[in-house]
Parts: sequence; structure tokens; C-alpha cells
Amino acid sequence: MNKDFIVPNAWSIIVDHFNKADVSASESIFSLGNGVMGQRANFEEKYSGNSLQGSYIGGIYYPDKTRVGWWKNGYPEYFAKVLNAPNWIGINVKVNKQTLDLNTCEVTSFYQELNMKEGWLERTFTAVLPNENQIKITSKRFLSLRYNEIGAIKYSLTPLNFDGEISLSPYIDAGIVNQDANYDEYFWKVLDSVVSTNSAAITSKTLKTNFYVCTAMAIALKLNNEPLILKQTTVTKSKKVKLKYTQQVTQNQTLTLYKYGTYVQSMNHKKNALLKVAKSNLQQASEIGFEGLLALQKEDWAAIWHTADIKIEGDVKAQQAIRFNIFQLNQTYLGEDARLNIGPKGFTGEKYGGSTYWDTEAYCIPFYMATKDKHVAKNLLLYRYNHLEKAIKNAEKLGFTNGAALYPMVTMNGEECHNEWEITFEEIHRNGAMVYGIYNYVNYTGDYAYIPKFGLEVMIAVARFWYQRATFSKDKNKYVILGVTGPNEYENNVNNNFYTNYLAQWCINFTLENIAKLKTDYSADFERVFTKTKLSTNELEQMREVAQNIYLPYSKDYGVFLQQDNFLDKEIIPTSFLPKSQRPINQHWSWDRILRSCYIKQADVLQGIYLFENNFDTESIAKHFDFYEPLTVHESSLSPCIHTILAAKINRIDKAYEMYLRTARLDLDDYNHEVAEGCHITSMAGTWMAIVQGFGGMRTFDNTLAFNPQIPSQWQSYSFTINYRGCILNVHKSHTECVFTNESNASITIEVSGEKVEVLPNTLVKI
Amino acid sequence: MNKDFIVPNAWSIIVDHFNKADVSASESIFSLGNGVMGQRANFEEKYSGNSLQGSYIGGIYYPDKTRVGWWKNGYPEYFAKVLNAPNWIGINVKVNKQTLDLNTCEVTSFYQELNMKEGWLERTFTAVLPNENQIKITSKRFLSLRYNEIGAIKYSLTPLNFDGEISLSPYIDAGIVNQDANYDEYFWKVLDSVVSTNSAAITSKTLKTNFYVCTAMAIALKLNNEPLILKQTTVTKSKKVKLKYTQQVTQNQTLTLYKYGTYVQSMNHKKNALLKVAKSNLQQASEIGFEGLLALQKEDWAAIWHTADIKIEGDVKAQQAIRFNIFQLNQTYLGEDARLNIGPKGFTGEKYGGSTYWDTEAYCIPFYMATKDKHVAKNLLLYRYNHLEKAIKNAEKLGFTNGAALYPMVTMNGEECHNEWEITFEEIHRNGAMVYGIYNYVNYTGDYAYIPKFGLEVMIAVARFWYQRATFSKDKNKYVILGVTGPNEYENNVNNNFYTNYLAQWCINFTLENIAKLKTDYSADFERVFTKTKLSTNELEQMREVAQNIYLPYSKDYGVFLQQDNFLDKEIIPTSFLPKSQRPINQHWSWDRILRSCYIKQADVLQGIYLFENNFDTESIAKHFDFYEPLTVHESSLSPCIHTILAAKINRIDKAYEMYLRTARLDLDDYNHEVAEGCHITSMAGTWMAIVQGFGGMRTFDNTLAFNPQIPSQWQSYSFTINYRGCILNVHKSHTECVFTNESNASITIEVSGEKVEVLPNTLVKI
Repeated sequence: MNKDFIVPNAWSIIVDHFNKADVSASESIFSLGNGVMGQRANFEEKYSGNSLQGSYIGGIYYPDKTRVGWWKNGYPEYFAKVLNAPNWIGINVKVNKQTLDLNTCEVTSFYQELNMKEGWLERTFTAVLPNENQIKITSKRFLSLRYNEIGAIKYSLTPLNFDGEISLSPYIDAGIVNQDANYDEYFWKVLDSVVSTNSAAITSKTLKTNFYVCTAMAIALKLNNEPLILKQTTVTKSKKVKLKYTQQVTQNQTLTLYKYGTYVQSMNHKKNALLKVAKSNLQQASEIGFEGLLALQKEDWAAIWHTADIKIEGDVKAQQAIRFNIFQLNQTYLGEDARLNIGPKGFTGEKYGGSTYWDTEAYCIPFYMATKDKHVAKNLLLYRYNHLEKAIKNAEKLGFTNGAALYPMVTMNGEECHNEWEITFEEIHRNGAMVYGIYNYVNYTGDYAYIPKFGLEVMIAVARFWYQRATFSKDKNKYVILGVTGPNEYENNVNNNFYTNYLAQWCINFTLENIAKLKTDYSADFERVFTKTKLSTNELEQMREVAQNIYLPYSKDYGVFLQQDNFLDKEIIPTSFLPKSQRPINQHWSWDRILRSCYIKQADVLQGIYLFENNFDTESIAKHFDFYEPLTVHESSLSPCIHTILAAKINRIDKAYEMYLRTARLDLDDYNHEVAEGCHITSMAGTWMAIVQGFGGMRTFDNTLAFNPQIPSQWQSYSFTINYRGCILNVHKSHTECVFTNESNASITIEVSGEKVEVLPNTLVKI
Repeated sequence: MNKDFIVPNAWSIIVDHFNKADVSASESIFSLGNGVMGQRANFEEKYSGNSLQGSYIGGIYYPDKTRVGWWKNGYPEYFAKVLNAPNWIGINVKVNKQTLDLNTCEVTSFYQELNMKEGWLERTFTAVLPNENQIKITSKRFLSLRYNEIGAIKYSLTPLNFDGEISLSPYIDAGIVNQDANYDEYFWKVLDSVVSTNSAAITSKTLKTNFYVCTAMAIALKLNNEPLILKQTTVTKSKKVKLKYTQQVTQNQTLTLYKYGTYVQSMNHKKNALLKVAKSNLQQASEIGFEGLLALQKEDWAAIWHTADIKIEGDVKAQQAIRFNIFQLNQTYLGEDARLNIGPKGFTGEKYGGSTYWDTEAYCIPFYMATKDKHVAKNLLLYRYNHLEKAIKNAEKLGFTNGAALYPMVTMNGEECHNEWEITFEEIHRNGAMVYGIYNYVNYTGDYAYIPKFGLEVMIAVARFWYQRATFSKDKNKYVILGVTGPNEYENNVNNNFYTNYLAQWCINFTLENIAKLKTDYSADFERVFTKTKLSTNELEQMREVAQNIYLPYSKDYGVFLQQDNFLDKEIIPTSFLPKSQRPINQHWSWDRILRSCYIKQADVLQGIYLFENNFDTESIAKHFDFYEPLTVHESSLSPCIHTILAAKINRIDKAYEMYLRTARLDLDDYNHEVAEGCHITSMAGTWMAIVQGFGGMRTFDNTLAFNPQIPSQWQSYSFTINYRGCILNVHKSHTECVFTNESNASITIEVSGEKVEVLPNTLVKI
């Protein structure tokens, strides 16, 4: 995709010309979702050019047979794939028997808009068919937030230079295959298809996992805005059902087809009720109608934006980008269902498979906590709580005992999917993120009750993992953690990764502290959990022993913690000396060369400093930043945001802004030439963090909501809104002042640049 | 396979009963080969039970599409597979229209013998068919050493309790698929089949690699030893051609079918001459006849045994085992063709693919040097010399410059096949083995001219690799080698593996010494190579700098070199504490657990001590042995032999014998329950080394042939013969004396237990 392909606009993503080479990238960027299902912005009509037809339903996956070069004990048998679902958006169009296909027509005008404020996608274009018929098409569609099993399309056609016959064939295609399939297998079985007047449905189920899905559509037609009844012809194939309507139109008449689609599936309904529910959904959609549903859509998106929007004045591209990120996060996950999570590609593609990485705990929870009610973040925690049994089984498989848990690197149902030993078995810091997520949630929301009720079990199981995973080194007279991969995946199988060791120590200490607290404050819960987990005092002793004596590699010469043992054996050459032609190094260097270099993929020691910033003074933070950032190649989309936040913390606003630019428009400008595969959903939360925690300097340590607002010189002002313990607070920062507006009915005391400030209900404070 | 399944016998491998469960294991053990082709001991007649039909032709491979979990830059696109070739041994048998198939008959007697002294396989059995016809079969076959494109079978049938009709259908089947195929593809294309009277041929070619092979057979028949002419029926299918002969026989008559087979292939002949050569081969075979060919076979094997045999008195199982190993090595490789090498499974199976590992240089060269004329080992060196260009290309792919070479981990044609980053990119010590092989050859044979003519180019390219691969550690003020895997593959991506660093240093020093020598002694060659390699004095300086300042990890506390940096951070728990239920650990532990344990797969530091024993005093060798052997799980077939040799060196003959037992009968007793996949060919050379260098104490450092013979108490005596610089010397060791017999016409001075001894021509010396 070309840079500058997207037209800058504060509230919409716009493309104003047609370029075949950009179609599949656009399909990702213009994707629609409503938190439970989503679809790429595929054209409704046939498109024979390069495209990835993609529709996805949250929670529905397939355990694809894994592909492994060299098998290792403990590898999972399958890799859960995000499952490309039956396509209900398709509408084949024939104009005087010629197929409308933008790959074979001349496209004389083209305008596509993803309206983020209101949550819909529109496309208007004029095409000249090979027979020289000119036709104008407008299609508009959305996936309803209010009725989240429903989507709607309005598809209008106007002949510009001819009278003639238009035939429209809306269809459901259940013969969709995954692009991401290890052995090119088909993952569905079609069970049944039903056709009625102006509607049809296909019921299919996934192989192996046995998810049942009824995909259904209902059709309505209008001519020049008047309802139109047409004879329906039906074409039913084994995996596809198509209705066909033919109409004579004269020049400048407009023929409109409304298509309502629905997915009804067995995670939410009884199997034998699926068709019935689907019919009732479609009836409801038809009754409310396209415009009615659209009005509700605007309402619901307005509510989301109310607490989630970030405004940036003076930089429309930055404005567009941050809204795009917030919009896509909300399209991916809305937090009403603890069985769902946030996939790395959301509903915009299927690459990487699985739905859940440590990204959720490290990057997404802060966003959802601050922009939604606390039950949303709680659902993300419960997702892991519900997978605890499987995490314990996973640890057992690797030789751990006694209820120790190792959460998976990638999962869809709690079981590990990933199969690269250096990640699957060794990137164990993810286990700490589970506990950090709990701490972060409780610390931000004040909902301490989560710990006795749910959190403690997870904390104990993870603490058990850590004390077992550490070994005592006689040589160092300390506990060491050998053979790990840190967040910087450009090091594998290293010893004493600082981040991992520090996090392990913290996890144990946090668990022990809370055990002590619960003994007195929540004794019933404490008893229940102690009994359930069979925790012994001997184990507590072992945990304490490990935490108190864990080894943290440190260099006196540099005054910094070392990323791992022997880090200083490397040739330390800043990235500024790397020739441009060799970057990104992961596309130019062999893996061994990357591993033995000093180059850091993403924040590693600095990830620890970020999470535990309150334990480091500013001078120390600066020292670590100055040591590690120059060695960091930021070849993960999760890297720059952490560096923005730390750079802002040490008052390097220009550096913070430079880092910010590296992710803000990652997908919109397709930095890595890969957006066609899907958007980088989880890193979008990092961009939000970069503004709120970076420029805004928001911190919530020790039950205190603190800010240290700064502003890049390139912007006039920015503002964001957060929900902190029920208080809706808007922060507006310009070069001259910072305004805090309390939109709730209770007063709140905050700390601004170290000073306590009280913001009374429904008032604002200028600083 | 059951232990004790093989009947002990000094010269033959024998099975004296039929057990379906053992068939595929037997197929491996009883394999035949003649150095250029080989075949598993499949039954000639149909066998519907568990079996791997396998015929292999040296040098013919297929670049199978690689299977990778997670792609890394630098991985090869393909993995060269040993190619299962058309089967020419098949003879379908029907007795009164009933198919002879040992899987469905009752087998009332069964005797199978692989005669290693003479190089043939015989099988005699009595079967009762479902129709109660009893028949006795004797089949005998071999692959000719003298005419190495030819094999012969004599297949005789005697009805024991009936008169009736026997039909015999010898066939060629070119529809063979590899068991070892990543995507179950068929790797051949059949081009043509031709049938004449009593003969047939199929010409096929390999896909992608375009090797052309004509597989042909000729048939002769006898009844009670009288020539028999029968009507021939032909059945030709797309990939198979079958001739059918039917004969009425009466009880106790013997019907015999002779089948001569040949592979004629495009590595050795013009494509369009293949059929003609095949016909001429078969004509020659038919003229010489089965018994004539067999007589030549005995002659040729006698010549091999003359310089290769090891005799062990007082332990028939040990005798059988060592002969089996020597026999299989000779079946696999005879050293007349520098394009061939020694595959890990030889011609006995197809697992692991590729033909060449560092096993050749580290284990096989010593065997071939000592048991054959020097041109054989030289051909093994030339194999690598001829692959130098590709090794340089391989290094370039990984970022090395200036003509540095990295030889592949696994190869068939010089290109890397292996795709596991920790091995492919990091197990770089193999590169040192290439130079050690040259040193070893020159040192043993005295053929110094090899270095100026061929060796130097390889040495320079490898030395270049080492100085580039080392990096200077400011922290250590030494050159370090980061991110490697040593011979102990139970450690990955470690820093400063002692073996690798020591070998790198030695490689550079050896190269520099020889450059100095060549400058004066072989100045023309020196100039040629210097010009060809564009070696600069600056590079020589860099090499010297690295070699002089390389870091070797050492523990003062233990007085041993450490396997790698931070080895002492591990929990050091001897293998004697490992529960039996957890061994082998590679079948019970996840990979990360193995990696962070102290357990050693195979000799690593000790491999270095073995290769460079002359640089260590006995006390130091003992210290290293005592530190590392107790941590070694010997889960590679290449491990125990090195430990035998070192244990013998430090006069621990019982330990040496204990280690010896761990590999000697690895395949015959099927220790690892995997011999069905093929035999462990390369480790067989290690067993030979264990006797000659271990118990015999043979060393050849500094142009001196030395011995330090010891004998395990379990044996009465043992003897071996070596060819040292043209002198054929037999060493016979008993508990009372050691006899050295010089079978050549020149006197030789040897060192026995430190004393110089002259052995005059054609005489013996008792000590």
C-alpha cells in the first residue's frame, strides 16, 4: 500500500480513488466489528482481484493440526486457528448479463469511508462495464452494536447511461476456507440449508470443535425508494445458497437491495434453536429497518466515544490515527463476554491464530479499565481465571507439580497453541503478566474483592511456578532462572533475564503480601482458597526464600540492570550505526546473527522499569533508557509505546514524540507492508497508553490518580477522558494550560505534576 | 524387537524363528549394500504385514519441500531426502492360486542368515498356506561388490505335501514412495518400460533433481536344477512391470527362479545409454551366473575383512556385534566415488534424510583410514573440498563475507538441508571437524601433499569463518563466540562452548602454521591458493589476534574447562540420581527442562579432550572425565565410544567396557526400539574406535604409531588389523601378551605403552 493512501480526516478513514494493488490492504483497514463478530471490508459484489474474504465470529476456532519442523516433547498437538466463517455479505451483480467486478471494469470514481464516529462503512463508485454500461453504486453497511448478532447492508445501483436489466444475487457462502491453514484443509461441515421468500439460511458446524453456526440473510428491495417485490429464483449448491432477482431499470432510476445478515451460534443458543433464533433476528432487523438500525448504531458509538475519545488539535493525521486505534479496539472487544478476548488481528485477518497473548494483560487492560466500566477489565481477568485448570495442566506437562500454573503463550481455550520451544516453553514472563493484570485492575479500580474471590488462586498457582522454576546457583549463592526468553524475543534461552527475574520476585512478594492481608481481612475466602489449593507453609517458605534471594544481573560500570547474564560480552553498537539497508534486521539477518547481536526487539529491561516505575528514581530510569533505547530496533509494534511513556517520564518530549510516531499510524500507513494480512489490534492499546500515560503522564500507583501533562510541539492541544473509579474525568492539555473536567457527581483529588488538586463534581480546573 | 532375538554367531547374523512383530526390525538389520546401492531385507514374495519396502541408490536424492513451524531467515527451502528407489527384488508367488504371504500363512520353520564373511543374505522357511499346502522356500541374495550395479537372487520352492501349480511373478515396481516424505508426495516420474523375453526394465527419473535411473531384471528358471523354459505372461501397469511364469510341480520337486537386478543411473552413464547398459549388465550377470557371482562376492569380502576384521575371543556376542558394525560400514561406503558419503542410516532406512553429517569427519574417517587404502579417506575429504563453493555461499547467506565457509549440518549436495536454527545456524563446531579431518588424514597417512593441493583452501575458508564469528568482549578482554550449540545438543544458544572455542582456535593456528610451511615448501601451490582465495595479510593478522586471545571458560575450583559460560549456575546432580522412569530424558522431559539441566547428551568438553588429547596430561583428562561423565546421559549413539577411549586412557578398563557395551549391540539388540527405521551406521565407526583406540590404545599423534593395549576381563583376547602408511599391522591382545604382526614388506617402529618397538617385515613381536 502507498503511504498517503488514506485521506486525512478527523473522524473517518477515507480512500478517494481505486487502486487494485490497495484492495486487500483496504479490506483490513476498513474492517467492521461489534465485539462479537467482524468482517473484512470485502466488496459485496464479486471481486476477482487479490483479496482475502474474511468473516470471523468471536470464540469460534479450529484446532488445526500443528506444523512443526522438529518435534519437541511438550509441544501442543494443534494450533487453534481463528476461523473464517460463512460469508453473508455477498451480492453478485449482473448488468445486462455482464458481471460487475471492479477487477475487470473501468472505475471512474471511487470513494470509500469508514465512519468511526457512527460505526459504518460506505463505498460509492462509478464503474464502466466492458459493454460500456456506466453504473453508479453506493453500498453502506455496519454490524450492529445493539443487536450484536445482526448486520445490515444497503446496496444501491443507478444506471447512468443506459436502460436495461439488472440482476442481483445475494448469497450465503459457507464454503469459505481459511487462508491461515497448515494443511489447506476445510474446517467446516455444512449441515443444512433453508430457503424462504426473501430469506435463506445455512447451518454448518466446525469440524473437531463442533461449534454450530446458523448464517442467515433476509432481503428487501426498493426501486426509487419504493418497495419492490420481485420473483425470486433460488440456486442451492452444497455449501452455498443464492437468491436471484432481476429488474428492468431505466437510466437514473435507483435500484436498492437491503440485506440483513445474522450469525447465530451454539456458544449462545441451543443447537436446535439456531435457525429459529436466526429467523427471529432477521425479522427484527427487517422491522426496525436499515435506517432504524443505523440510528441505534450512531447512538451506541456516541456512548463509546464519550468515555474513550482522544482529541488532538493541530494534527489531523494524528487525530485520525488515534481514533482509528480506539475504534478498532472497540470493534474487537467490548467486554460483555468473559469467554472472548482480544486477538492480535481482531476480526481483521487470521494470521497468528489464537485469540489471546500476554498483550491483553500488558497492553489492553489499561485501555479498557480507563475507557469503560470496570466489569469489562474484570471479564478479561476472569477469562484467565477460567483457564486456570488448563494452565496447571500445561505446567504439569512441562514437569511442574503441586498446582503450579503456566499460562499459554497463545490460546483460544486455555490450552497452549504455540510450538516454538524458545517461546512456548521459555517465554515464561507472560505468567507474571497474569498477576500484574490482577494488581493493575485492583489498583486502578479499587475493586479489591476480586483478589479473595478469584485472583488469589491465580496468584498462588503462578507463584508456585516461579519458586519451582528458579534454581539455586552455588556459584552465585542466589536463585537463578535459567533458559528463558524475555519480552525481547531477539534473545532466546538466556539466563537471568532481568525482566523475568524481577517480575518473578514481584509476583511471589505480591502473592505473599496478599495472603497475609487476606488471612485477617477475608478469612473465609482465605480458608476456602487455602483448602482448595492445598498450599502448605513449607511452600510459602520456599516462595519467600526464592523471592528474597533472586539474582538480578547488574552492571556497576554502567549503573544498570543487565538484560541477562553476559549481556556485556556482546559488541555494543547503537542502532544508529546499522545501515538502513539492513533494517528491519528480522528481514535481513539470519536468526543466529540477531541472537548474538546486542539489538533489542522491544522493551525488555525497560518493560520492567515501566511496570514498576515507582521502584526506580528518575535518574535511574534515564540511565536505563539511555543504555537500552539506542540498542532497540523496535521491530515489534508493542515497543515504541513503552519508550514514549518512559521518554516522557524523563522529560524528553521530542524523543517521546519520535517514538509515538512509530506506531500511531502503523496500519494506516502500512509501515511494514503487511496490513493486508490484518491490523495490529493489540498494539493499538499501546498507542492509547502512549498518549494517556506518556504525554498525559497518568499514573495510578498507590491509590493516587496522578498526571504530569506535556505536549509535543507539533500539536496544538490534546484531550482524553478516563473513567477512574466511576469518576469521568476529561483532561485537556494545550501549550498554555491543562484543564481537568470532572463530569461526574463526586469530587476527586488528583495529583498534577506532584501537586494535589481537587476537582469538584461537574466543574473544571485550569492549571 | 525382543532382545536376544538375534542368534549369537561369530560371522553371521541369524534369526531362527518367525515373529511378525520383528519383521521390520529384521529388514533393517539384515540389509544389504555394496557401497553404491543398498536395500532393506524385505521379503521377495508379498508381505502384507508391517514392513518398510526400501531400496536406495547412493547419491540419488530428492529436495523435499521443507516443513517448518516458524520460518527463520536463512533456512533452506528444502530437505534432501534419501530416495526410496524402484524395487527390483519382488517375486510374487502363488501356490495353487493361493498367494504366499508370511503374514497370512502358518510358518512352521524359519531361518534367516546374513553371512557377513561372504556378503549374502539367505532365508529358508516352511509355510503352510490357508489351503494346507506345505511349501519350503529358500531365497538367497546379494549385491555384487565386483559388479556394483548388479544384484542377484536365487529363489527356490519345494512342495512338501502336494502336487500342484506354482506361479512366480518377478516384477519391478517403480511406484515406491518414501516413508520419509514431508507432504506425502511421490518423488519419481516413470518414463518408460520395456519387456523382452525373461527380462524387463523401467526407466524413471526423479522430480526436480532429474536423476535418471533404469531399473531392470532378468529371469532364469530351473526345475530340479535343470534349466526350464516357461511361457511368459506380461502385466504392465503405469509404474510396474511384472512377468508371470506358471509350472506344475510334484511333491519334493524344486522350482528355482534366478533373478538378476540392476540399477543404471545418470550419475554414471549418459541418460540415453541407460537401457543399453542395463541390458548389458544383465547379460553379464546371466553369463557369470548366480554361483559365479557369489564366488566373486566371497573373494571380495575376504579382501575387505583381511584389513578390517576385529576378532574377539571369549565373547561371541561382542564378536558378532563388532563384525556387524564393520560389515555395515563397508556395505554403506567403500570409498571409490568422491560424490558419495556415509548417511546416518546408510542404505538401511531413510530417516533423517541427507547423506552427510559431521559424523563422517569425526567418526568415520579414522575407521576408513585404518582399514583401507588412503585414497578412500581422501575421497571423503574431496567430497568436502568439492562442496567448498556451496559452503561459502551458505556462510554468505548468514552474513559472513570474504570467502568464509560454513559447511552444512546435513547435506546431500553441499547445500544445507537442516532447519532448526539452534542446529543449522549454531552448531558450528562441525566446521572445525572439516579441518580436523584434513589434519587427521595427513597425520595418519603422511600424505602431506593433500594440504597444498586441496586442504588449504578449505582451511582458509573455515579459519575465515572463525575469526569473523568471534566477537571481542570488552567485559572479558577476550574474543568470545556467542550463541552456539556444541556437540551436546542438550544445550542451545550458549556462549563460549569450550569445545567450539578450542576447536576454532586450533583451526586458525593449524591453518596459520601450514600457511607458513607452504610458503617455503610448496610455494607454487601457496601462490595459487593465495591468489584464488585473495587472502590478505590483514586477514591473517585478524585470525592470529582471535586465536591468541580466545576465551576458554575454566573453573579454578574444579580445575576443569567449563562446557560453556555459566555452566556452574546449574544444579549439578549426577545421572545416578535420575529415576529410571525418566530416562531417556529426551522422551520424558520437555525441551526447556533438558536445556536448563546439567545433563549432557554426548561428549562435549570430552570430545575436545579426545581430539586434542596430546595437549592434556592424564591427570587433567581424569579430572575432566570425572566431572563430565557422571552428568552425561549418552542419549546419542556417538557418545559412549569417546568415553570408552578416554576411560581406557586413564586406565579405567571396567568403565571403558561399561561404555563399550552401550553401543556395541545398539542395533542388534535394538536398545532404543527404533531399529525398524534403519541402523545407526555412523556410530558403528565409533564402536570400531572404541576397540582400536580405546582398548588397543592406538594413537597416531606426531607421526608416531603408538599403542597401549588393555583388555576387558570379560574377553579372552581380541585382535585388529590396521593399515598404517602402507604397513599392514595386526595387533593381538590377550591377558598374557600382546602380539604385533607386521604383514608387509617394510619394517615399522611403533610405540607400545611408551616404549619404542621395531616390528620387522613379515614377523611378529610378542610383548
